[in-house]
Amino acid sequence: MTVERILHHFPLDPASRQVRLVLGEKRLAFTEVSVRYWERPRELTKMNPSGMVPVLVETPAGGAPLILCEPRAIIDHLDETVREPPLFAPDPVERAEARRLISWFEGKFAFEAGGYILHEKIEKRLLGLGAPELANLRQGKEALKNHLFMLDTLLQAREWLAGRRLSLADFAAAAHFSVIDYFGDMPWREFPAVKTWYMKMKSRPCFRPLLNDRWPGLHPAGHYDDLDF
Amino acid sequence: MTVERILHHFPLDPASRQVRLVLGEKRLAFTEVSVRYWERPRELTKMNPSGMVPVLVETPAGGAPLILCEPRAIIDHLDETVREPPLFAPDPVERAEARRLISWFEGKFAFEAGGYILHEKIEKRLLGLGAPELANLRQGKEALKNHLFMLDTLLQAREWLAGRRLSLADFAAAAHFSVIDYFGDMPWREFPAVKTWYMKMKSRPCFRPLLNDRWPGLHPAGHYDDLDF
Repeated sequence: MTVERILHHFPLDPASRQVRLVLGEKRLAFTEVSVRYWERPRELTKMNPSGMVPVLVETPAGGAPLILCEPRAIIDHLDETVREPPLFAPDPVERAEARRLISWFEGKFAFEAGGYILHEKIEKRLLGLGAPELANLRQGKEALKNHLFMLDTLLQAREWLAGRRLSLADFAAAAHFSVIDYFGDMPWREFPAVKTWYMKMKSRPCFRPLLNDRWPGLHPAGHYDDLDF
Repeated sequence: MTVERILHHFPLDPASRQVRLVLGEKRLAFTEVSVRYWERPRELTKMNPSGMVPVLVETPAGGAPLILCEPRAIIDHLDETVREPPLFAPDPVERAEARRLISWFEGKFAFEAGGYILHEKIEKRLLGLGAPELANLRQGKEALKNHLFMLDTLLQAREWLAGRRLSLADFAAAAHFSVIDYFGDMPWREFPAVKTWYMKMKSRPCFRPLLNDRWPGLHPAGHYDDLDF
């Protein structure tokens, strides 16, 4: 069945990037609409009352559009309707581990590390709230190192974050890191196992569109789109 | 296959309650271990590095224990391994709507409403941080009303939160509301459709254990365990 897909997203939003990676991994074509969500556009709140991106609109040929809001709803729907490649290993232990890590990134990591850095580097710029507060940036970067230390330890013993199989946990983590990396704030050299893993992620075809993202006034670090960084 | 289940939880934690409701709904017996998570007990961080409850340990007869951390991992695992009753309707539209609402409660609702109220009423008490700040409580209760208004509108047109079928969205919402209701802070009378829905939820057998919860020094409102409130 042919399905037309339109993704409403913001290129430097980790949740939007996670959905783009999943669409790419499942080789699903889609039309992109870049949304200035911080201006609270009416078309966005009409689709998603929470006012957040990403929103995916799926329209089957001759059918009614299905409006999918919030990353979990979008991704679970895609994984249920387009089975290949699956986003979770068949092994229940690896599935549980992948989901633990996804919650870790959406909760603890975003709260302690990513949120601080992206608020200072992106949101303040977009909202015209002035220059980044250095104390907040420092706090975010300190927390980032603690999280990377934990992941480096995991990745010294595993090929992928949740175990032997690539899973949604890898896309969730890579989506968060890739935005921080846009600003050159990932201390790759201190965490070699994470760096090796990220090189593998960055080389996947689904990653290519993210490496081409540019936002006016926000310049990426020199190595941002370099596969051999 | 016989599986022994031990749930490490805190009775007044919405995430723990959501898992208890799911275990109850699927008629799965389990042993409860009440955890004072705010004291950061070593046994808890050994199981779950994030230091959060709930944690479910499943041990199949003669097998190795599986430690499930974070509500999403626990609940998805239970729904995949114990199919009846399913936690999502078969209809993709209802599934997507249920997942949108679950994200709403875990994100927006907890951030704007529930988190304020529970921090002031529970966490400050447990951590010895003094009396509730009235301005924060007021802000949380104002936000709560906005959320309830939105849900009341939904429930005027639907039997359950996501549509025609009971789903995990109902358990997620009821778990959050039930803790606020413990403190008598749910303005039921102003939102009759939400109240009718909550009466149905409260009457389900899976809800019974929650209504028996009591925590030393934190007294429930008089109507808390009343099915006809």
